[in-house]
Amino acid sequence: MNVLKGAAVVGQSGGPTAAINATLSGVIRGALDEGSKGVISKLYGMRNGIEGLLKENLVDLGGMFSSDGEEDDEKLRILAQTPAAALGSCRKKLPDPSEDPDFYESLISVFKKYDIRYFFYIGGNDSMDTVAKLSKYLAGSEYEMRCVGIPKTIDNDLAGTDHTPGFGSAAKYIATTVQEIVRDCAVYSVPAVTVVEIMGRDAGWLTASAALANLINGEGPDLVYLPERSFSFDLFLEDLKIAQSKKPGIVVAVSEGLRLDNGRYVGEGTQSGATDVFGHKYLAGTAKALEMFVKEKIGCKVRSIELNLPQRCAAHLASLTDINESIETGLFAVRAGIEGSTGVMVSSVRGGGDCYSISFRTEEISGIANAIRCVPDGYINERGNGVTDECLRYIFPLIQGECRTVYRDGLPVHIVI
Amino acid sequence: MNVLKGAAVVGQSGGPTAAINATLSGVIRGALDEGSKGVISKLYGMRNGIEGLLKENLVDLGGMFSSDGEEDDEKLRILAQTPAAALGSCRKKLPDPSEDPDFYESLISVFKKYDIRYFFYIGGNDSMDTVAKLSKYLAGSEYEMRCVGIPKTIDNDLAGTDHTPGFGSAAKYIATTVQEIVRDCAVYSVPAVTVVEIMGRDAGWLTASAALANLINGEGPDLVYLPERSFSFDLFLEDLKIAQSKKPGIVVAVSEGLRLDNGRYVGEGTQSGATDVFGHKYLAGTAKALEMFVKEKIGCKVRSIELNLPQRCAAHLASLTDINESIETGLFAVRAGIEGSTGVMVSSVRGGGDCYSISFRTEEISGIANAIRCVPDGYINERGNGVTDECLRYIFPLIQGECRTVYRDGLPVHIVI
Repeated sequence: MNVLKGAAVVGQSGGPTAAINATLSGVIRGALDEGSKGVISKLYGMRNGIEGLLKENLVDLGGMFSSDGEEDDEKLRILAQTPAAALGSCRKKLPDPSEDPDFYESLISVFKKYDIRYFFYIGGNDSMDTVAKLSKYLAGSEYEMRCVGIPKTIDNDLAGTDHTPGFGSAAKYIATTVQEIVRDCAVYSVPAVTVVEIMGRDAGWLTASAALANLINGEGPDLVYLPERSFSFDLFLEDLKIAQSKKPGIVVAVSEGLRLDNGRYVGEGTQSGATDVFGHKYLAGTAKALEMFVKEKIGCKVRSIELNLPQRCAAHLASLTDINESIETGLFAVRAGIEGSTGVMVSSVRGGGDCYSISFRTEEISGIANAIRCVPDGYINERGNGVTDECLRYIFPLIQGECRTVYRDGLPVHIVI
Repeated sequence: MNVLKGAAVVGQSGGPTAAINATLSGVIRGALDEGSKGVISKLYGMRNGIEGLLKENLVDLGGMFSSDGEEDDEKLRILAQTPAAALGSCRKKLPDPSEDPDFYESLISVFKKYDIRYFFYIGGNDSMDTVAKLSKYLAGSEYEMRCVGIPKTIDNDLAGTDHTPGFGSAAKYIATTVQEIVRDCAVYSVPAVTVVEIMGRDAGWLTASAALANLINGEGPDLVYLPERSFSFDLFLEDLKIAQSKKPGIVVAVSEGLRLDNGRYVGEGTQSGATDVFGHKYLAGTAKALEMFVKEKIGCKVRSIELNLPQRCAAHLASLTDINESIETGLFAVRAGIEGSTGVMVSSVRGGGDCYSISFRTEEISGIANAIRCVPDGYINERGNGVTDECLRYIFPLIQGECRTVYRDGLPVHIVI
């Protein structure tokens, strides 16, 4: 095997998750291990992703997380329980390699300066696009470097993998919080509707997770609407009336990305129409729009709740399965790079049989970037107001286990790099 | 001592908390103990508070939580970790005893029918008003019964007690969640403002709790505004500009009850002016109003987050100190009733010295009901955009310790009565 010796760099990009630092801790462990074998000379962290790399805003991660060359277990453990992106993040869309080769030559001059031979990038769909473009450019360059994408997104919408690191923890937070909201909404005897808005622009995986308590103990939300199906105000009103005929307090879980038949977002009326740098429409207010609708059409007590940022940063309630797999994903990425993989993303494959098991492999990244994996039609009930048990059984193993979070003086301990 | 033998009834009223069922479990333990001594013959639970009592909608709580007359520890433990009000709640304002004696006679006929001699009511300010009125009426009646109010409110705004059960858990949830949001907001290098809205109509205790991470690890919100001080948009803009000159991501914690100099709520513009049955103005949208203000005046990225219901029902992150004290408060209430107290509320007294300690006693309820205990002026900094270390040191012991929550299949286990 051709062993490529040199430094490595790792970055984080896109929206934070509760598990992205666990993946980073896996990359650090892997790099320190390869360091002790004389393969990876140094591990740099890029601050704020590719933007920091361009400015040579780099930190010596290897040195930061080792004592006398040994892994600093306590620090790495705290890193794994710290939410958001310890290295900082960015939302930068790379230019097309054929249109702006100068951009890529600037990057390569940084790689050369620091003798960087391994590029690990932890992120979602847009970050995989970065890895795909960079490795495509490098393929036609004489600079030898290996680029490995490491998936991360609470949205679980990446193609080519059973699920994404970060999703399990977000799902556990959402399922737990919605179960608590269901309990809260059961205390009054007057009719009331509570609409809970959950992240997910195009894919309804997170919103589906809200229904896990239905499978586990029969005490989940009454109605669940995913963005994979067109939303109808008329059917919603019918669904609500049927639900209200059975009990006073109704809890509805909705995706932020709900759209009407005509393609317009349910929450669009309240929005500015602004888009982010990737051209995604900036969304908010789906639950608020439904709150106003219920107030007008039914007139009962109604409340909307946006779960908002805590969905992606509530590390105190991370899934042990997710955190362990996130660390494994980072370790696997380092091994894959050392063994010669480039232009790939680490993916997970679920084993067959009754017991949940997962293994890792690499997938060509070009076919993955920019593809969105939605909830399959068969996972949504016929009426479009709930998910099937099959869907919930797919999510179920990903929320299992609780982390032994380290607290100090009553608050979880975080690390700041 | 005159030992009054007979049945007892317990109810929950007002908004749910993460700890109100822990208090209920304390009352059940206390009543079962007195049952074994032949004093309390039976413990009824009223469904939906005083409303259920009037309809004789009662459950045999003693029977439900004992096996062969022994306390069912496992069930009581699960009850203590179940959020919201297991017996259901209500928001009913009792009539003045002198104006509507018939109402009280109806209640007394229910008490007589079930031989109820002890009335325990767990709730906040409005619920203490209920206990005060009922005991006042009973004082002039020939029916012998003892009424004990047991405090519960996340708002910590009850007079006559060091703090209220439920507050510590809400404070721990808020401090942890805001710390996580601070981490999330630190990942990008572009200027951004995040406004977090926290419950508290008149008292800023919960909003103050958001700043605990500042004391504990120096990583809390940048600006904190409580309802005890008038809010000024001009000063807010100045504060923001100063904060933004130091770092890009600014996190602001605000109370839902912020008011301007003229007495109008900051969020009032977006509201209907509706009031609840107690005449409180229904509030929402303070953070949203500030989001719109920042967008217009600064033009940077801005996001508002309402912590909403999870503040009061996130039992998965309850404070061990709060849960233990909540159970103790319930036990103490039963003992106080047996020992002859009536027309009282259980209150907590903090011991002096460096180590936190608490003891319980009873306070005359007539002086407590309808009084609001706000954050003292000396706990707020001069500029009015933060709280003092003294304030945080008062809250600090109340969030200490984590509960060993029982999970099953990845979700916390709750009990439904």
